[in-house]
Amino acid sequence: MDFAYTPRAQELMTRVQDFMDAHIYPNEHLYHEQHAAFGPDNIWQVPPIVDELKAKARKAGLWNLFLPESERGAGLLNAEYAPICEIMGRVHWAPEVFNCNAPDTGNMETLERYATDAQKEEWLDPLLEGKIRSAFLMTEPDVASSDATNVQTEIRREGDEYVINGRKWWSSGAPDPRCKLLIVMGKTDPGADRYRQQSMILVPRDAPGVKIVRHLTVYGYDHAPHGHAEVLLENVRVPASNMLLGEGRGFEIAQGRLGPGRIHHCMRTIGAAERALEMMCKRLMSRHAFGKLIGEHSVWEERVADARIEIECARLLTLKAAWMMDTVGNKVARSEIAMIKVKAPVMALKVIDDAIQAHGAAGVSQDPGLAAMWAHIRTLRFADGPDEVHRRTIARLEFGKHVDMKAARGR
Amino acid sequence: MDFAYTPRAQELMTRVQDFMDAHIYPNEHLYHEQHAAFGPDNIWQVPPIVDELKAKARKAGLWNLFLPESERGAGLLNAEYAPICEIMGRVHWAPEVFNCNAPDTGNMETLERYATDAQKEEWLDPLLEGKIRSAFLMTEPDVASSDATNVQTEIRREGDEYVINGRKWWSSGAPDPRCKLLIVMGKTDPGADRYRQQSMILVPRDAPGVKIVRHLTVYGYDHAPHGHAEVLLENVRVPASNMLLGEGRGFEIAQGRLGPGRIHHCMRTIGAAERALEMMCKRLMSRHAFGKLIGEHSVWEERVADARIEIECARLLTLKAAWMMDTVGNKVARSEIAMIKVKAPVMALKVIDDAIQAHGAAGVSQDPGLAAMWAHIRTLRFADGPDEVHRRTIARLEFGKHVDMKAARGR
Amino acid sequence: MDFAYTPRAQELMTRVQDFMDAHIYPNEHLYHEQHAAFGPDNIWQVPPIVDELKAKARKAGLWNLFLPESERGAGLLNAEYAPICEIMGRVHWAPEVFNCNAPDTGNMETLERYATDAQKEEWLDPLLEGKIRSAFLMTEPDVASSDATNVQTEIRREGDEYVINGRKWWSSGAPDPRCKLLIVMGKTDPGADRYRQQSMILVPRDAPGVKIVRHLTVYGYDHAPHGHAEVLLENVRVPASNMLLGEGRGFEIAQGRLGPGRIHHCMRTIGAAERALEMMCKRLMSRHAFGKLIGEHSVWEERVADARIEIECARLLTLKAAWMMDTVGNKVARSEIAMIKVKAPVMALKVIDDAIQAHGAAGVSQDPGLAAMWAHIRTLRFADGPDEVHRRTIARLEFGKHVDMKAARGR
Amino acid sequence: MDFAYTPRAQELMTRVQDFMDAHIYPNEHLYHEQHAAFGPDNIWQVPPIVDELKAKARKAGLWNLFLPESERGAGLLNAEYAPICEIMGRVHWAPEVFNCNAPDTGNMETLERYATDAQKEEWLDPLLEGKIRSAFLMTEPDVASSDATNVQTEIRREGDEYVINGRKWWSSGAPDPRCKLLIVMGKTDPGADRYRQQSMILVPRDAPGVKIVRHLTVYGYDHAPHGHAEVLLENVRVPASNMLLGEGRGFEIAQGRLGPGRIHHCMRTIGAAERALEMMCKRLMSRHAFGKLIGEHSVWEERVADARIEIECARLLTLKAAWMMDTVGNKVARSEIAMIKVKAPVMALKVIDDAIQAHGAAGVSQDPGLAAMWAHIRTLRFADGPDEVHRRTIARLEFGKHVDMKAARGR
Repeated sequence: MDFAYTPRAQELMTRVQDFMDAHIYPNEHLYHEQHAAFGPDNIWQVPPIVDELKAKARKAGLWNLFLPESERGAGLLNAEYAPICEIMGRVHWAPEVFNCNAPDTGNMETLERYATDAQKEEWLDPLLEGKIRSAFLMTEPDVASSDATNVQTEIRREGDEYVINGRKWWSSGAPDPRCKLLIVMGKTDPGADRYRQQSMILVPRDAPGVKIVRHLTVYGYDHAPHGHAEVLLENVRVPASNMLLGEGRGFEIAQGRLGPGRIHHCMRTIGAAERALEMMCKRLMSRHAFGKLIGEHSVWEERVADARIEIECARLLTLKAAWMMDTVGNKVARSEIAMIKVKAPVMALKVIDDAIQAHGAAGVSQDPGLAAMWAHIRTLRFADGPDEVHRRTIARLEFGKHVDMKAARGR
Repeated sequence: MDFAYTPRAQELMTRVQDFMDAHIYPNEHLYHEQHAAFGPDNIWQVPPIVDELKAKARKAGLWNLFLPESERGAGLLNAEYAPICEIMGRVHWAPEVFNCNAPDTGNMETLERYATDAQKEEWLDPLLEGKIRSAFLMTEPDVASSDATNVQTEIRREGDEYVINGRKWWSSGAPDPRCKLLIVMGKTDPGADRYRQQSMILVPRDAPGVKIVRHLTVYGYDHAPHGHAEVLLENVRVPASNMLLGEGRGFEIAQGRLGPGRIHHCMRTIGAAERALEMMCKRLMSRHAFGKLIGEHSVWEERVADARIEIECARLLTLKAAWMMDTVGNKVARSEIAMIKVKAPVMALKVIDDAIQAHGAAGVSQDPGLAAMWAHIRTLRFADGPDEVHRRTIARLEFGKHVDMKAARGR
Repeated sequence: MDFAYTPRAQELMTRVQDFMDAHIYPNEHLYHEQHAAFGPDNIWQVPPIVDELKAKARKAGLWNLFLPESERGAGLLNAEYAPICEIMGRVHWAPEVFNCNAPDTGNMETLERYATDAQKEEWLDPLLEGKIRSAFLMTEPDVASSDATNVQTEIRREGDEYVINGRKWWSSGAPDPRCKLLIVMGKTDPGADRYRQQSMILVPRDAPGVKIVRHLTVYGYDHAPHGHAEVLLENVRVPASNMLLGEGRGFEIAQGRLGPGRIHHCMRTIGAAERALEMMCKRLMSRHAFGKLIGEHSVWEERVADARIEIECARLLTLKAAWMMDTVGNKVARSEIAMIKVKAPVMALKVIDDAIQAHGAAGVSQDPGLAAMWAHIRTLRFADGPDEVHRRTIARLEFGKHVDMKAARGR
Repeated sequence: MDFAYTPRAQELMTRVQDFMDAHIYPNEHLYHEQHAAFGPDNIWQVPPIVDELKAKARKAGLWNLFLPESERGAGLLNAEYAPICEIMGRVHWAPEVFNCNAPDTGNMETLERYATDAQKEEWLDPLLEGKIRSAFLMTEPDVASSDATNVQTEIRREGDEYVINGRKWWSSGAPDPRCKLLIVMGKTDPGADRYRQQSMILVPRDAPGVKIVRHLTVYGYDHAPHGHAEVLLENVRVPASNMLLGEGRGFEIAQGRLGPGRIHHCMRTIGAAERALEMMCKRLMSRHAFGKLIGEHSVWEERVADARIEIECARLLTLKAAWMMDTVGNKVARSEIAMIKVKAPVMALKVIDDAIQAHGAAGVSQDPGLAAMWAHIRTLRFADGPDEVHRRTIARLEFGKHVDMKAARGR
């Protein structure tokens, strides 16, 4: 048993931390200023500072750190990438500077694992270069997405092409002007076995028939220039070679994609919670009320202590899940992955909400950034499956340790 | 003991409910459409539907229902106005249609109680007519507002005028194009006794030196066309006759203003929670997952039941506080007022958050309006004093029932 | 709307309060001393002080206050009895002094409503006199009692007799040496319609075949001399005339019995919570830590304030349920009755647990009585149906306001 | 980073687990039966099965596993002992079988570290042999023990002796008939520096003047034959050589003692929570209500999943604290030790309470043992310092990372 990070992880943590100190934190204000300068009618543009810093990060060798088991990535274990990802997660736009941002990381992993060489050349290489961006189109507005068998989008073979029809939403990153690739999930064979009906297919963003209908907000935030789109797919035609892995294998790909995706979200979430705790402490030590520092009132001691306890818990649980993914694989680790997916967002929301309360009215405003942080993390209680479904998974695995559920039902 | 609303209250509840059904709910979409049509550069304008409906409400006699103990108002008791206010609170812009919206109601009550006849003629009459709007400038960015003695704005007498210098924020309603009056709290005599340093003064919105520095967001919402301003007051000069009640009486006015203001907030909050519960129930009964209606999964039964229980509790507590204000006065009722100020927002935030979770990803978007409702109510955990200060008040009154705190300290 | 208690209620509250001050509180210690003096082998005896005080209470006219709508009782409304019952609930053995203790009150109400004159003469009269005690045998160890259709005890007609076989537990009060009557629920016709299989029958405690198998503890407490028994019924024979109301009407009686029973439990629970809060306040004001009174540390302000808020909420909800039972009847009030059944115990457990924490290690001991109070109230989260079942009831009534559940299922 | 237990730990875990399966679980019933057979007047005796099993465990080499850094113990790291201690913690009387029970383990560690060779020979050796038992007398009834400087017991030097006067309570294990040693904390020099006033001294249980005044209950449990005593020390005289480490060093010893003591409590607590979860799962899978297994109602899925998540979190946090104690020492690990001291009991109380609710009324009775488990763990929220004090420690260390608190106060 050893709770120390590996030397390789420690070395990269130091370098990423130094980069954050030198280049990210000092430019947080500039990022927002540059974006604001585009004006309210031109929000779907990327502040120039991002490209400047991407060049710096790449030059520093802090690039594509997320990709495990591949010569294209840094070759880090999940348990090594975890603390690095956490550091990046302290600033919402920082991961992109290291080409480590969602949903591109998930999409790159998907291509790395399942794409043909031709598909990789066309899409994975420019993504790894950070030249283009991508989106993942799974959720649909008209059905309960918590039950993934409900997907209704149709992918129909016609000669050498597939024709796609459907309506997707929460297509995050699709509004980004650099987005060139959509990975679309849909049904190729509604009559097949329940988990063989689905396929994933690669759709160029500019294919005829792809239409962004509107932008969704998250507690009032448009998340520009990244954004969340509702996308209409009307008779979109792509070559048959754009099919990923093969017809009917969409579920299999989704399962493979979601493990690492969930753990990355949790790592970044823990980084956000750490930052919120830091801001809470500083604020509480900077103002007096009723004759002493606000932080010396014991209600605040309690909240700060509980924040520290719960952050540590969530971090350890996430590291253990990562370590299990590294040592026994995603399938054996599925209870642990479900556990962090429930724990990390709930934990972070509480910490950030307390930090907001510590800031008084300033907390809900644009100033400290805590409200934006909270709104973003609130979406993680449904993204990649709602809490309720993950808890169901955990409980069933737990019951299964002690009883044969089928036999129990029959009694 | 009688939990039935008075006949007068019941009659008005029916009429307001009918008005909501006939005119407010059917126009909810139109309100947002009209506002969106102004474009992102012109958000500080009021959708025309508001004025249309105000005329209708006034004609229907549903106007200025909030004002107790005054011939200018409807003469309702607080306990009678409560359930009516709750109904209005189900749609965030509905109260204004009945000229019953914050902060104008609080400002009108303040003027009714403390203004001279000349001041009333100039400001109260057009406010009661719904022709102008107003703002209340108390909170300042640089000090802990939870301790009200910290206010730093200076109000200095110079001959027949007062000269005002300071910086305020969270001046809600100040950005509204119809806002003509600012009620400003500041210090006239920093050397006076702790609770006699403050005064309140009437400042025309267009007085030279009054400058809206920027707009604050609440989570990502700008709350246009109402909005929240940061206001700079630089050598603003007003006639000496604009002083309210007299120098050094600012605290006294604040105390008188906050009781009804807090209770109105709570009533509207309960209305919002009721609406969220209704939306949650309808959504849960409209979709299936894992073989049955989502609402038939018992985690949702639990949340719906707890929502119903806690809404009822908060409503009864609010009604009792209102009844005490009516029967024994705001001062005796101060523990009850503090209690609802803590209970109602915390209760509503939980109900709305569960309703959001019930809606899946749609919940955080602009579609059902729940995210906006949550963000708005989150501000009530600091507005008019943070939870922590109200709990302190309640606890001290509780301890005082059993022990002499001064004597206890000395032991 | 009027939150004031009726003059009749106020008058009785004063008299009961005076009686508590004069006779109950000063004898709390004596009660335990007298019981301890019996020695560990003779715990099923009643301390003599109880009979002394019963005589005093009866003489003072504070007797059988619980029974509404009957010339045998005090004729109080539920909403009038509620605050009186709450006062008695502050000391666990006080209700018996006024002949107002469970399960005898519920049993007396049952007899009053459903018994024949002969049955009343034999059992109700001595119960109302306080000369005998009774028990209610419903729960069984081998089935989930949350679903009341599971009852397995058999009641078989044989000529002029019924023969009863079954095993019951949590037969509270059965070990009391004065217990003479058992009201037993069982199945007369397992083949009948689901809600017509059950009957209730009167069984003398000393009938051959009635055997107390053992005593159950509640968190280590034996609750002697009242106690909770596991009772074996082996070929117990009673005259056919002991059937209550008629064969197959057990469910109907249970429904009629549970409404008032639940509300009495809640009233007493609120009284207990009030006492715990009082003890918490006094303790927090009596000791110093880290340079000030423990109660001046704001974590304790928070807990005291939340205790006050939640007690008020539970009380108002209970009063409203009582008022509805008085004005529209138990059936219409069933959501409200379910609501208080969930709310009151959960609220009280939190308040008492905080009071225990305020007392440090003393809190869990026999000294302040808080641990015993907590253990007793913890049982109310299952007694008369577990929280989960009441929440299910509330949720279904709530859904039913908005949708037709059957139609929704079919969609 | 490596979450696997060391080979040595794994090997011992297997052996202890096997011993539990072979000897402890099959005798749980017998233990209680033997104790009950002593009768209510003779509860302070140890069931013979304990000595039988102690002999077996010792023979199996499963003895004194707790003692680190000593040739007398098994030489395990804290992180190695942790999972073993957890296994033992599943049955409340099991640790003693392995001579690993509180407070003897803490007392043995104290003697090992701080006693003279003569003191060790007299007391440590028989304790390590399991021949005698011991108690630790620190808490006093008349002062707030959360602030340890409040201790009032007097230890006065007179010639070659010390004379001790004071009143202690919660002296756990003192009523055990085999208890021969009391380690007593008291003041030798009330005029000295705040943390140099205290000393610890060894007092034979049978020294004249040592009197057990009464036994304290925990909820209704007497915890016989172990028990919790209130002890009066009246002019108790011991040789001067019984002083531990030296006058004025009581605080230093207390600090050294509490680290391992707290972590052992947490480990056992996690074992208890695991067992409660197992019992909850089995029960939920064994009964039906409303047409399906109770565990298939999603409220129970939620509770089971949350139990699994929070147990894992508490375990990882405890293991990390143990690892830090092993690698950087108790002083550097003091925030982590405080964190588990808060987290583990609160976590376990929730899990056990849910397990109780899952069992219905049976849960609070003597049958499954859950109520006793809950009552015992509830004491850990004050034992070795209340939650509030540990949170204060954590918060202050957290604030200290970001600001200089002294400077902040002065601003």
